[in-house]
Amino acid sequence: MSEARIIDGKAFAAKLREQVAADVQALKVEHGVTPGLAVVLVGDDAASQVYVRNKGEQTLAAGMHSETHRLPADVSQDDLLALVGKLNADPSIHGVLVQFPVPDHLKQSDIVAAISPDKDVDGLTVTNAGRLASGLPALTPCTPLGCMMLLKDALGDLRGKSAVVIGRSNLMGKPMAQMLLAADCTVTIAHSRSQDLPGIVRQADIVVAAVGRAEMVKADWIKPGAVVIDVGISRFPSRDPVAAAAGKTRLVGDVAFDEVKAVAGAITPVPGGVGPMTIACLLANTVTAAKRLNGIGA
Amino acid sequence: MSEARIIDGKAFAAKLREQVAADVQALKVEHGVTPGLAVVLVGDDAASQVYVRNKGEQTLAAGMHSETHRLPADVSQDDLLALVGKLNADPSIHGVLVQFPVPDHLKQSDIVAAISPDKDVDGLTVTNAGRLASGLPALTPCTPLGCMMLLKDALGDLRGKSAVVIGRSNLMGKPMAQMLLAADCTVTIAHSRSQDLPGIVRQADIVVAAVGRAEMVKADWIKPGAVVIDVGISRFPSRDPVAAAAGKTRLVGDVAFDEVKAVAGAITPVPGGVGPMTIACLLANTVTAAKRLNGIGA
Repeated sequence: MSEARIIDGKAFAAKLREQVAADVQALKVEHGVTPGLAVVLVGDDAASQVYVRNKGEQTLAAGMHSETHRLPADVSQDDLLALVGKLNADPSIHGVLVQFPVPDHLKQSDIVAAISPDKDVDGLTVTNAGRLASGLPALTPCTPLGCMMLLKDALGDLRGKSAVVIGRSNLMGKPMAQMLLAADCTVTIAHSRSQDLPGIVRQADIVVAAVGRAEMVKADWIKPGAVVIDVGISRFPSRDPVAAAAGKTRLVGDVAFDEVKAVAGAITPVPGGVGPMTIACLLANTVTAAKRLNGIGA
Repeated sequence: MSEARIIDGKAFAAKLREQVAADVQALKVEHGVTPGLAVVLVGDDAASQVYVRNKGEQTLAAGMHSETHRLPADVSQDDLLALVGKLNADPSIHGVLVQFPVPDHLKQSDIVAAISPDKDVDGLTVTNAGRLASGLPALTPCTPLGCMMLLKDALGDLRGKSAVVIGRSNLMGKPMAQMLLAADCTVTIAHSRSQDLPGIVRQADIVVAAVGRAEMVKADWIKPGAVVIDVGISRFPSRDPVAAAAGKTRLVGDVAFDEVKAVAGAITPVPGGVGPMTIACLLANTVTAAKRLNGIGA
Protein backbone atom coordinates (compact mmCIF):
# COMPACT_ATOMS: atom_id res chain seq x y z
CA MET A 1 0.00 0.00 0.00
CA SER A 2 1.16 3.52 -0.72
CA GLU A 3 1.97 6.00 2.01
CA ALA A 4 -0.50 8.57 3.23
CA ARG A 5 -0.77 11.93 1.52
CA ILE A 6 0.70 14.53 3.85
CA ILE A 7 -1.84 17.33 4.32
CA ASP A 8 0.02 20.62 4.01
CA GLY A 9 -1.69 22.88 6.53
CA LYS A 10 0.83 25.65 5.99
CA ALA A 11 0.06 25.88 2.27
CA PHE A 12 -3.69 25.61 2.89
CA ALA A 13 -3.53 28.36 5.51
CA ALA A 14 -1.63 30.60 3.09
CA LYS A 15 -4.36 30.08 0.48
CA LEU A 16 -7.03 30.78 3.08
CA ARG A 17 -5.32 34.03 4.06
CA GLU A 18 -5.27 35.03 0.39
CA GLN A 19 -8.99 34.31 0.19
CA VAL A 20 -9.59 36.35 3.35
CA ALA A 21 -7.58 39.25 1.89
CA ALA A 22 -9.69 39.11 -1.28
CA ASP A 23 -12.88 39.10 0.81
CA VAL A 24 -11.60 42.06 2.82
CA GLN A 25 -10.83 43.97 -0.38
CA ALA A 26 -14.33 43.28 -1.71
CA LEU A 27 -15.90 44.40 1.57
CA LYS A 28 -13.97 47.65 1.43
CA VAL A 29 -14.75 48.39 -2.21
CA GLU A 30 -18.35 47.20 -2.37
CA HIS A 31 -19.57 48.05 1.13
CA GLY A 32 -17.09 50.51 2.63
CA VAL A 33 -16.51 48.06 5.50
CA THR A 34 -13.02 47.30 6.84
CA PRO A 35 -13.12 44.25 9.13
CA GLY A 36 -11.42 45.03 12.44
CA LEU A 37 -9.94 42.69 15.06
CA ALA A 38 -9.11 43.86 18.59
CA VAL A 39 -6.82 41.69 20.70
CA VAL A 40 -6.52 42.28 24.45
CA LEU A 41 -3.32 41.13 26.14
CA VAL A 42 -2.98 41.19 29.92
CA GLY A 43 0.51 41.08 31.41
CA ASP A 44 3.74 40.09 29.69
CA ASP A 45 3.70 36.31 29.25
CA ALA A 46 6.37 35.66 26.61
CA ALA A 47 4.44 33.06 24.59
CA SER A 48 1.30 35.21 24.59
CA GLN A 49 3.33 38.18 23.33
CA VAL A 50 4.43 36.10 20.34
CA TYR A 51 0.90 34.85 19.58
CA VAL A 52 -0.56 38.34 19.83
CA ARG A 53 2.12 39.83 17.59
CA ASN A 54 1.50 37.11 14.98
CA LYS A 55 -2.22 37.74 15.08
CA GLY A 56 -1.73 41.47 14.66
CA GLU A 57 0.69 41.08 11.76
CA GLN A 58 -1.51 38.59 9.91
CA THR A 59 -4.57 40.78 10.48
CA LEU A 60 -2.81 43.76 8.91
CA ALA A 61 -1.42 41.59 6.08
CA ALA A 62 -4.99 40.63 5.17
CA GLY A 63 -5.86 44.32 4.81
CA MET A 64 -7.89 44.43 8.01
CA HIS A 65 -7.89 46.91 10.86
CA SER A 66 -5.88 45.61 13.85
CA GLU A 67 -5.78 46.87 17.43
CA THR A 68 -3.79 45.43 20.31
CA HIS A 69 -4.69 46.58 23.81
CA ARG A 70 -1.96 45.83 26.36
CA LEU A 71 -3.07 45.91 29.98
CA PRO A 72 -0.81 45.58 33.02
CA ALA A 73 -0.73 42.19 34.79
CA ASP A 74 -2.47 43.73 37.81
CA VAL A 75 -5.37 45.23 35.87
CA SER A 76 -8.67 44.89 37.73
CA GLN A 77 -11.46 42.68 36.45
CA ASP A 78 -13.67 45.77 36.22
CA ASP A 79 -11.20 47.69 34.05
CA LEU A 80 -10.76 44.68 31.76
CA LEU A 81 -14.53 44.23 31.45
CA ALA A 82 -14.92 47.94 30.75
CA LEU A 83 -12.46 47.65 27.84
CA VAL A 84 -14.33 44.61 26.48
CA GLY A 85 -17.57 46.58 26.74
CA LYS A 86 -16.03 49.48 24.82
CA LEU A 87 -14.82 47.14 22.07
CA ASN A 88 -18.25 45.48 21.91
CA ALA A 89 -19.76 48.89 21.22
CA ASP A 90 -17.10 50.07 18.75
CA PRO A 91 -18.46 49.86 15.17
CA SER A 92 -14.93 49.68 13.70
CA ILE A 93 -14.30 46.42 15.59
CA HIS A 94 -15.90 43.13 14.47
CA GLY A 95 -13.81 40.66 16.44
CA VAL A 96 -12.88 40.87 20.13
CA LEU A 97 -10.33 38.42 21.46
CA VAL A 98 -8.84 38.30 24.95
CA GLN A 99 -5.58 36.33 24.90
CA PHE A 100 -5.71 33.53 27.49
CA PRO A 101 -4.44 32.59 29.99
CA VAL A 102 -4.96 35.72 32.07
CA PRO A 103 -3.44 36.25 35.55
CA ASP A 104 -5.07 34.28 38.38
CA HIS A 105 -6.97 37.21 39.92
CA LEU A 106 -9.04 37.55 36.75
CA LYS A 107 -11.95 35.20 36.07
CA GLN A 108 -11.75 33.77 32.57
CA SER A 109 -15.40 32.65 32.39
CA ASP A 110 -16.67 36.13 33.29
CA ILE A 111 -14.39 37.72 30.71
CA VAL A 112 -15.63 35.35 27.99
CA ALA A 113 -19.24 36.03 29.02
CA ALA A 114 -18.64 39.76 28.58
CA ILE A 115 -17.67 39.43 24.91
CA SER A 116 -20.52 40.13 22.50
CA PRO A 117 -21.42 36.79 20.87
CA ASP A 118 -21.52 38.59 17.52
CA LYS A 119 -17.85 39.62 17.95
CA ASP A 120 -16.73 36.39 19.65
CA VAL A 121 -14.29 35.34 16.89
CA ASP A 122 -12.72 32.68 19.12
CA GLY A 123 -16.15 31.04 19.47
CA LEU A 124 -15.79 30.83 23.25
CA THR A 125 -19.14 32.12 24.48
CA VAL A 126 -22.01 29.95 25.69
CA THR A 127 -24.20 31.64 23.08
CA ASN A 128 -21.98 30.52 20.21
CA ALA A 129 -21.73 27.00 21.67
CA GLY A 130 -25.54 26.96 21.80
CA ARG A 131 -25.89 28.32 18.28
CA LEU A 132 -23.50 25.66 16.97
CA ALA A 133 -25.31 22.91 18.89
CA SER A 134 -28.65 24.17 17.57
CA GLY A 135 -27.56 24.36 13.93
CA LEU A 136 -27.81 28.17 13.85
CA PRO A 137 -25.20 30.51 12.33
CA ALA A 138 -22.41 30.66 14.91
CA LEU A 139 -18.87 31.88 15.32
CA THR A 140 -17.01 28.65 16.02
CA PRO A 141 -13.66 27.95 17.68
CA CYS A 142 -10.84 28.39 15.17
CA THR A 143 -8.99 25.09 15.56
CA PRO A 144 -11.91 22.73 14.84
CA LEU A 145 -12.98 25.08 12.05
CA GLY A 146 -9.52 24.68 10.53
CA CYS A 147 -9.75 20.89 10.88
CA MET A 148 -13.08 20.92 9.04
CA MET A 149 -11.57 22.90 6.18
CA LEU A 150 -8.68 20.44 5.85
CA LEU A 151 -11.08 17.48 5.99
CA LYS A 152 -13.39 18.90 3.33
CA ASP A 153 -10.38 19.61 1.14
CA ALA A 154 -9.06 16.07 1.63
CA LEU A 155 -12.34 14.20 1.25
CA GLY A 156 -14.81 16.43 -0.56
CA ASP A 157 -18.23 15.35 0.69
CA LEU A 158 -18.12 14.04 4.26
CA ARG A 159 -21.69 12.73 4.20
CA GLY A 160 -22.14 9.31 5.81
CA LYS A 161 -18.47 9.01 6.80
CA SER A 162 -17.72 7.57 10.18
CA ALA A 163 -15.73 10.07 12.28
CA VAL A 164 -14.13 9.57 15.68
CA VAL A 165 -13.08 12.57 17.76
CA ILE A 166 -10.69 11.71 20.59
CA GLY A 167 -11.02 14.35 23.30
CA ARG A 168 -14.06 16.28 24.48
CA SER A 169 -12.90 19.76 25.42
CA ASN A 170 -15.29 22.70 25.01
CA LEU A 171 -12.91 24.39 22.60
CA MET A 172 -11.93 21.46 20.42
CA GLY A 173 -13.53 18.02 20.81
CA LYS A 174 -17.12 19.06 21.39
CA PRO A 175 -17.38 21.73 18.64
CA MET A 176 -15.48 19.41 16.28
CA ALA A 177 -18.13 16.75 16.87
CA GLN A 178 -20.92 19.27 16.21
CA MET A 179 -19.31 20.37 12.94
CA LEU A 180 -18.79 16.79 11.75
CA LEU A 181 -22.41 16.02 12.63
CA ALA A 182 -23.58 19.08 10.70
CA ALA A 183 -21.61 17.70 7.73
CA ASP A 184 -23.66 14.46 8.03
CA CYS A 185 -20.93 12.27 9.49
CA THR A 186 -21.73 9.54 11.96
CA VAL A 187 -19.81 10.96 14.92
CA THR A 188 -18.29 9.17 17.91
CA ILE A 189 -16.76 11.15 20.78
CA ALA A 190 -14.17 9.13 22.67
CA HIS A 191 -12.11 10.21 25.66
CA SER A 192 -10.02 9.08 28.59
CA ARG A 193 -12.89 6.99 30.01
CA SER A 194 -13.56 5.16 26.75
CA GLN A 195 -13.03 1.42 26.73
CA ASP A 196 -11.09 -0.15 23.85
CA LEU A 197 -10.08 3.15 22.31
CA PRO A 198 -8.02 1.40 19.58
CA GLY A 199 -11.08 -0.62 18.57
CA ILE A 200 -13.25 2.49 18.46
CA VAL A 201 -10.74 4.44 16.37
CA ARG A 202 -10.30 1.50 14.01
CA GLN A 203 -13.94 1.90 12.83
CA ALA A 204 -13.38 5.43 11.59
CA ASP A 205 -12.98 6.92 8.12
CA ILE A 206 -11.97 10.17 9.84
CA VAL A 207 -9.90 10.39 13.04
CA VAL A 208 -9.42 13.69 14.87
CA ALA A 209 -6.97 13.34 17.77
CA ALA A 210 -7.15 16.15 20.32
CA VAL A 211 -6.03 14.87 23.69
CA GLY A 212 -2.52 16.23 24.16
CA ARG A 213 -0.84 12.83 24.74
CA ALA A 214 2.21 12.52 22.57
CA GLU A 215 2.08 9.79 19.92
CA MET A 216 -0.82 8.00 21.61
CA VAL A 217 -2.53 6.98 18.37
CA LYS A 218 -0.68 4.03 16.83
CA ALA A 219 -0.67 2.52 13.35
CA ASP A 220 -2.77 -0.48 14.39
CA TRP A 221 -5.54 1.88 15.60
CA ILE A 222 -6.10 3.18 12.07
CA LYS A 223 -8.35 1.76 9.38
CA PRO A 224 -6.31 1.59 6.16
CA GLY A 225 -7.00 4.70 4.09
CA ALA A 226 -8.52 6.75 6.93
CA VAL A 227 -7.89 10.50 7.11
CA VAL A 228 -6.06 11.42 10.31
CA ILE A 229 -6.11 14.97 11.73
CA ASP A 230 -3.65 15.53 14.55
CA VAL A 231 -4.52 18.46 16.82
CA GLY A 232 -2.21 17.55 19.69
CA ILE A 233 0.96 19.51 20.38
CA SER A 234 3.45 18.32 22.96
CA ARG A 235 6.90 19.84 23.31
CA PHE A 236 10.01 17.72 24.00
CA PRO A 237 13.73 18.41 24.10
CA SER A 238 15.40 18.17 20.73
CA ARG A 239 16.65 14.68 19.78
CA ASP A 240 20.07 16.21 19.13
CA PRO A 241 21.75 16.29 22.57
CA VAL A 242 23.76 19.40 21.75
CA ALA A 243 20.69 21.25 20.54
CA ALA A 244 18.70 19.94 23.52
CA ALA A 245 21.38 21.23 25.88
CA ALA A 246 20.95 24.60 24.17
CA GLY A 247 17.21 24.46 24.95
CA LYS A 248 15.99 23.47 21.49
CA THR A 249 12.70 21.63 21.46
CA ARG A 250 10.68 19.57 19.01
CA LEU A 251 6.91 19.38 18.65
CA VAL A 252 5.08 16.05 18.73
CA GLY A 253 1.41 15.39 17.97
CA ASP A 254 -1.08 12.92 19.42
CA VAL A 255 -0.43 10.58 16.49
CA ALA A 256 2.65 8.36 16.02
CA PHE A 257 3.21 10.02 12.66
CA ASP A 258 5.96 7.84 11.22
CA GLU A 259 4.07 4.58 11.66
CA VAL A 260 0.53 5.91 11.05
CA LYS A 261 1.44 7.48 7.73
CA ALA A 262 2.11 3.96 6.42
CA VAL A 263 -1.56 3.04 7.04
CA ALA A 264 -3.61 6.24 6.71
CA GLY A 265 -4.88 7.66 3.43
CA ALA A 266 -4.01 11.22 4.43
CA ILE A 267 -2.53 12.75 7.57
CA THR A 268 -1.61 16.14 9.00
CA PRO A 269 1.96 16.52 10.27
CA VAL A 270 2.97 18.26 13.51
CA PRO A 271 4.13 20.96 13.03
CA GLY A 272 2.74 22.24 9.73
CA GLY A 273 -0.70 20.60 9.84
CA VAL A 274 -3.53 22.00 11.91
CA GLY A 275 -1.42 24.63 13.69
CA PRO A 276 -1.09 27.16 10.87
CA MET A 277 -4.84 27.01 10.25
CA THR A 278 -5.80 28.55 13.58
CA ILE A 279 -4.86 32.18 12.97
CA ALA A 280 -6.05 31.98 9.36
CA CYS A 281 -9.46 30.83 10.67
CA LEU A 282 -9.45 33.68 13.20
CA LEU A 283 -9.13 36.09 10.29
CA ALA A 284 -11.88 34.26 8.40
CA ASN A 285 -14.13 34.45 11.49
CA THR A 286 -13.49 38.18 11.75
CA VAL A 287 -14.60 38.65 8.14
CA THR A 288 -17.68 36.51 8.83
CA ALA A 289 -18.48 38.63 11.89
CA ALA A 290 -17.99 41.86 9.93
CA LYS A 291 -20.38 40.65 7.22
CA ARG A 292 -23.06 39.57 9.69
CA LEU A 293 -22.77 42.73 11.79
CA ASN A 294 -23.29 44.74 8.60
CA GLY A 295 -26.01 42.51 7.22
CA ILE A 296 -23.93 41.53 4.20
CA GLY A 297 -24.09 38.20 2.36
CA ALA A 298 -24.75 34.83 3.90
CA MET B 1 -30.92 -16.29 27.50
CA SER B 2 -33.55 -14.63 29.63
CA GLU B 3 -35.82 -11.90 28.32
CA ALA B 4 -35.08 -8.23 28.84
CA ARG B 5 -36.23 -6.49 31.97
CA ILE B 6 -39.08 -4.15 31.00
CA ILE B 7 -38.30 -0.67 32.29
CA ASP B 8 -41.46 0.68 33.88
CA GLY B 9 -41.42 4.38 33.04
CA LYS B 10 -44.87 4.90 34.47
CA ALA B 11 -43.83 3.66 37.92
CA PHE B 12 -40.54 5.58 37.76
CA ALA B 13 -42.35 8.79 36.81
CA ALA B 14 -44.76 8.32 39.72
CA LYS B 15 -41.80 8.00 42.12
CA LEU B 16 -40.17 11.06 40.56
CA ARG B 17 -43.36 13.08 41.03
CA GLU B 18 -43.40 12.02 44.69
CA GLN B 19 -39.80 13.19 45.03
CA VAL B 20 -40.69 16.50 43.38
CA ALA B 21 -43.64 16.92 45.76
CA ALA B 22 -41.32 16.32 48.72
CA ASP B 23 -38.82 18.87 47.35
CA VAL B 24 -41.63 21.38 46.87
CA GLN B 25 -42.81 20.85 50.45
CA ALA B 26 -39.28 21.39 51.76
CA LEU B 27 -38.88 24.56 49.67
CA LYS B 28 -42.12 25.94 51.10
CA VAL B 29 -41.32 25.10 54.70
CA GLU B 30 -37.61 25.90 54.77
CA HIS B 31 -37.44 28.80 52.33
CA GLY B 32 -40.98 30.10 51.87
CA VAL B 33 -40.68 29.43 48.14
CA THR B 34 -43.49 27.83 46.13
CA PRO B 35 -42.25 26.78 42.67
CA GLY B 36 -44.53 28.11 39.96
CA LEU B 37 -45.02 26.97 36.37
CA ALA B 38 -46.78 29.11 33.77
CA VAL B 39 -47.99 27.47 30.59
CA VAL B 40 -49.04 29.55 27.59
CA LEU B 41 -51.47 27.98 25.15
CA VAL B 42 -52.33 29.71 21.87
CA GLY B 43 -55.49 28.66 20.05
CA ASP B 44 -57.59 25.55 20.60
CA ASP B 45 -55.68 22.58 19.17
CA ALA B 46 -57.30 19.53 20.76
CA ALA B 47 -54.10 17.60 21.52
CA SER B 48 -52.42 20.69 22.99
CA GLN B 49 -55.45 21.26 25.24
CA VAL B 50 -54.99 17.75 26.66
CA TYR B 51 -51.23 18.19 27.21
CA VAL B 52 -51.68 21.56 28.86
CA ARG B 53 -54.42 20.28 31.14
CA ASN B 54 -52.23 17.32 32.19
CA LYS B 55 -49.32 19.64 32.92
CA GLY B 56 -51.50 21.92 35.00
CA GLU B 57 -53.01 19.05 36.99
CA GLN B 58 -49.64 17.42 37.70
CA THR B 59 -48.13 20.76 38.68
CA LEU B 60 -50.89 21.31 41.23
CA ALA B 61 -50.66 17.70 42.43
CA ALA B 62 -46.98 18.29 43.26
CA GLY B 63 -47.96 21.22 45.46
CA MET B 64 -46.70 23.82 43.02
CA HIS B 65 -48.27 27.02 41.74
CA SER B 66 -49.78 26.55 38.28
CA GLU B 67 -50.95 29.14 35.77
CA THR B 68 -52.37 28.54 32.33
CA HIS B 69 -52.63 31.49 29.98
CA ARG B 70 -54.97 30.86 27.05
CA LEU B 71 -54.55 33.21 24.11
CA PRO B 72 -56.76 33.35 21.02
CA ALA B 73 -55.43 31.70 17.84
CA ASP B 74 -55.10 35.13 16.19
CA VAL B 75 -53.03 36.69 18.99
CA SER B 76 -50.26 38.92 17.67
CA GLN B 77 -46.59 38.03 18.08
CA ASP B 78 -46.14 41.26 20.07
CA ASP B 79 -48.90 40.41 22.53
CA LEU B 80 -47.53 36.90 23.01
CA LEU B 81 -43.99 38.22 23.57
CA ALA B 82 -45.35 40.80 26.02
CA LEU B 83 -46.95 38.00 28.06
CA VAL B 84 -43.68 36.01 28.03
CA GLY B 85 -41.85 39.13 29.20
CA LYS B 86 -44.34 39.60 32.04
CA LEU B 87 -43.89 35.97 33.14
CA ASN B 88 -40.09 36.33 32.93
CA ALA B 89 -40.34 39.23 35.38
CA ASP B 90 -42.89 37.60 37.73
CA PRO B 91 -41.12 36.36 40.91
CA SER B 92 -43.89 33.81 41.60
CA ILE B 93 -43.12 32.05 38.29
CA HIS B 94 -40.00 29.86 37.90
CA GLY B 95 -40.87 28.02 34.72
CA VAL B 96 -42.28 29.50 31.51
CA LEU B 97 -43.48 27.14 28.82
CA VAL B 98 -45.18 28.00 25.55
CA GLN B 99 -47.03 24.98 24.20
CA PHE B 100 -45.93 24.26 20.62
CA PRO B 101 -46.91 24.16 17.85
CA VAL B 102 -48.26 27.70 17.62
CA PRO B 103 -50.32 29.05 14.68
CA ASP B 104 -48.34 29.77 11.50
CA HIS B 105 -48.30 33.55 11.82
CA LEU B 106 -46.24 33.27 15.02
CA LYS B 107 -42.49 32.64 14.87
CA GLN B 108 -41.50 29.79 17.17
CA SER B 109 -37.78 30.66 17.28
CA ASP B 110 -38.48 34.25 18.34
CA ILE B 111 -40.87 33.05 21.03
CA VAL B 112 -38.29 30.62 22.41
CA ALA B 113 -35.64 33.35 22.34
CA ALA B 114 -37.88 35.59 24.45
CA ILE B 115 -38.08 33.09 27.32
CA SER B 116 -35.62 33.81 30.14
CA PRO B 117 -33.00 31.01 30.06
CA ASP B 118 -33.34 30.74 33.85
CA LYS B 119 -37.07 29.93 33.45
CA ASP B 120 -36.73 27.87 30.27
CA VAL B 121 -37.94 24.60 31.82
CA ASP B 122 -38.33 22.96 28.40
CA GLY B 123 -34.61 23.59 27.76
CA LEU B 124 -35.34 25.08 24.34
CA THR B 125 -33.21 28.24 24.36
CA VAL B 126 -29.84 28.62 22.65
CA THR B 127 -28.41 29.65 26.01
CA ASN B 128 -29.40 26.38 27.66
CA ALA B 129 -28.12 24.39 24.66
CA GLY B 130 -24.82 26.25 25.05
CA ARG B 131 -24.70 25.72 28.80
CA LEU B 132 -25.30 22.00 28.32
CA ALA B 133 -22.67 21.79 25.58
CA SER B 134 -20.20 23.69 27.79
CA GLY B 135 -20.75 21.55 30.88
CA LEU B 136 -22.37 24.41 32.82
CA PRO B 137 -25.56 24.12 34.89
CA ALA B 138 -28.39 24.13 32.37
CA LEU B 139 -32.09 23.51 32.14
CA THR B 140 -32.24 20.60 29.71
CA PRO B 141 -35.02 19.26 27.48
CA CYS B 142 -37.33 17.01 29.47
CA THR B 143 -37.39 13.89 27.30
CA PRO B 144 -33.62 13.23 27.18
CA LEU B 145 -33.47 14.12 30.88
CA GLY B 146 -36.07 11.42 31.53
CA CYS B 147 -34.07 8.94 29.42
CA MET B 148 -30.96 9.67 31.48
CA MET B 149 -32.83 9.00 34.70
CA LEU B 150 -34.10 5.65 33.40
CA LEU B 151 -30.60 4.72 32.19
CA LYS B 152 -28.94 5.58 35.49
CA ASP B 153 -31.60 3.58 37.31
CA ALA B 154 -31.10 0.60 35.01
CA LEU B 155 -27.29 0.63 34.88
CA GLY B 156 -25.99 2.58 37.86
CA ASP B 157 -22.69 4.06 36.72
CA LEU B 158 -22.62 4.79 32.98
CA ARG B 159 -18.89 5.51 32.88
CA GLY B 160 -17.06 4.02 29.92
CA LYS B 161 -20.20 2.50 28.40
CA SER B 162 -20.63 2.71 24.68
CA ALA B 163 -23.83 4.60 23.81
CA VAL B 164 -25.43 5.10 20.40
CA VAL B 165 -28.07 7.78 19.90
CA ILE B 166 -30.10 7.35 16.71
CA GLY B 167 -31.46 10.75 15.69
CA ARG B 168 -29.93 14.20 16.00
CA SER B 169 -32.75 16.63 16.72
CA ASN B 170 -32.05 19.73 18.81
CA LEU B 171 -34.61 18.65 21.40
CA MET B 172 -33.72 15.00 21.74
CA GLY B 173 -30.74 13.44 19.98
CA LYS B 174 -28.22 16.23 20.46
CA PRO B 175 -28.91 16.98 24.15
CA MET B 176 -29.11 13.22 24.82
CA ALA B 177 -25.61 12.85 23.38
CA GLN B 178 -24.34 15.71 25.55
CA MET B 179 -25.80 14.16 28.69
CA LEU B 180 -24.38 10.73 27.92
CA LEU B 181 -20.99 12.33 27.28
CA ALA B 182 -21.19 14.19 30.58
CA ALA B 183 -21.83 10.80 32.23
CA ASP B 184 -18.53 9.59 30.69
CA CYS B 185 -20.03 7.36 28.00
CA THR B 186 -18.35 6.96 24.63
CA VAL B 187 -21.08 8.49 22.49
CA THR B 188 -21.94 7.88 18.85
CA ILE B 189 -24.60 9.97 17.10
CA ALA B 190 -26.11 8.17 14.15
CA HIS B 191 -28.84 9.38 11.80
CA SER B 192 -30.50 8.95 8.43
CA ARG B 193 -27.19 9.52 6.61
CA SER B 194 -25.29 6.93 8.62
CA GLN B 195 -23.92 3.93 6.76
CA ASP B 196 -24.44 0.44 8.21
CA LEU B 197 -26.71 1.64 11.02
CA PRO B 198 -27.28 -1.95 12.26
CA GLY B 199 -23.52 -2.44 12.57
CA ILE B 200 -23.13 0.84 14.47
CA VAL B 201 -25.97 0.04 16.87
CA ARG B 202 -24.61 -3.47 17.44
CA GLN B 203 -21.51 -1.97 19.15
CA ALA B 204 -23.53 -0.25 21.85
CA ASP B 205 -24.13 -1.04 25.52
CA ILE B 206 -26.81 1.68 25.44
CA VAL B 207 -29.13 2.38 22.50
CA VAL B 208 -31.39 5.42 22.45
CA ALA B 209 -33.72 5.40 19.44
CA ALA B 210 -35.28 8.75 18.60
CA VAL B 211 -36.07 8.90 14.92
CA GLY B 212 -39.82 8.41 14.68
CA ARG B 213 -39.70 5.42 12.32
CA ALA B 214 -41.92 2.66 13.63
CA GLU B 215 -40.12 -0.55 14.62
CA MET B 216 -36.97 0.38 12.68
CA VAL B 217 -34.56 -1.12 15.24
CA LYS B 218 -34.55 -4.90 14.90
CA ALA B 219 -33.34 -7.69 17.18
CA ASP B 220 -30.21 -8.37 15.13
CA TRP B 221 -29.13 -4.72 15.59
CA ILE B 222 -28.81 -5.20 19.34
CA LYS B 223 -25.81 -6.45 21.29
CA PRO B 224 -27.07 -9.11 23.74
CA GLY B 225 -27.67 -7.51 27.12
CA ALA B 226 -27.74 -3.89 25.86
CA VAL B 227 -30.13 -1.38 27.41
CA VAL B 228 -32.59 -0.03 24.84
CA ILE B 229 -34.45 3.24 25.33
CA ASP B 230 -37.22 3.84 22.83
CA VAL B 231 -38.20 7.50 22.38
CA GLY B 232 -40.16 7.10 19.15
CA ILE B 233 -43.93 7.29 19.07
CA SER B 234 -45.87 6.48 15.93
CA ARG B 235 -49.63 6.06 15.88
CA PHE B 236 -51.38 3.38 13.85
CA PRO B 237 -54.95 2.13 13.57
CA SER B 238 -55.83 -0.51 16.13
CA ARG B 239 -55.10 -4.11 15.09
CA ASP B 240 -58.70 -4.96 15.92
CA PRO B 241 -60.64 -4.02 12.75
CA VAL B 242 -63.78 -3.14 14.66
CA ALA B 243 -61.84 -0.89 17.06
CA ALA B 244 -59.90 0.57 14.11
CA ALA B 245 -63.15 1.37 12.33
CA ALA B 246 -64.22 3.18 15.50
CA GLY B 247 -61.01 5.27 15.29
CA LYS B 248 -59.02 3.42 17.97
CA THR B 249 -55.27 3.67 17.55
CA ARG B 250 -52.18 1.96 18.95
CA LEU B 251 -48.78 3.50 19.70
CA VAL B 252 -45.60 2.00 18.27
CA GLY B 253 -42.00 2.92 19.10
CA ASP B 254 -38.84 3.02 16.99
CA VAL B 255 -37.88 -0.41 18.31
CA ALA B 256 -39.40 -3.74 17.23
CA PHE B 257 -40.23 -4.42 20.86
CA ASP B 258 -41.36 -8.04 20.69
CA GLU B 259 -38.20 -9.30 18.98
CA VAL B 260 -35.72 -6.91 20.63
CA LYS B 261 -36.82 -7.80 24.14
CA ALA B 262 -35.51 -11.32 23.49
CA VAL B 263 -31.97 -9.91 23.02
CA ALA B 264 -31.71 -6.75 25.12
CA GLY B 265 -30.88 -6.68 28.82
CA ALA B 266 -33.49 -4.03 29.55
CA ILE B 267 -35.92 -2.11 27.36
CA THR B 268 -38.54 0.60 27.63
CA PRO B 269 -41.97 -0.23 26.23
CA VAL B 270 -44.14 2.12 24.14
CA PRO B 271 -46.38 3.29 25.69
CA GLY B 272 -45.35 3.30 29.34
CA GLY B 273 -41.60 3.84 28.94
CA VAL B 274 -40.11 7.24 28.20
CA GLY B 275 -43.46 8.98 27.64
CA PRO B 276 -44.60 9.30 31.25
CA MET B 277 -41.19 10.72 32.24
CA THR B 278 -41.56 13.91 30.23
CA ILE B 279 -44.06 15.82 32.38
CA ALA B 280 -42.43 14.51 35.58
CA CYS B 281 -39.10 15.95 34.35
CA LEU B 282 -40.84 19.24 33.54
CA LEU B 283 -41.90 19.44 37.19
CA ALA B 284 -38.37 18.53 38.31
CA ASN B 285 -36.93 21.24 36.04
CA THR B 286 -39.32 23.79 37.52
CA VAL B 287 -38.10 22.92 41.03
CA THR B 288 -34.49 23.19 39.83
CA ALA B 289 -35.23 26.60 38.32
CA ALA B 290 -36.96 27.77 41.51
CA LYS B 291 -33.94 26.72 43.58
CA ARG B 292 -31.43 28.44 41.29
CA LEU B 293 -33.49 31.62 40.97
CA ASN B 294 -33.62 31.79 44.76
CA GLY B 295 -29.97 30.81 45.26
CA ILE B 296 -30.92 27.62 47.13
CA GLY B 297 -28.90 24.40 47.13
CA ALA B 298 -26.93 22.96 44.22
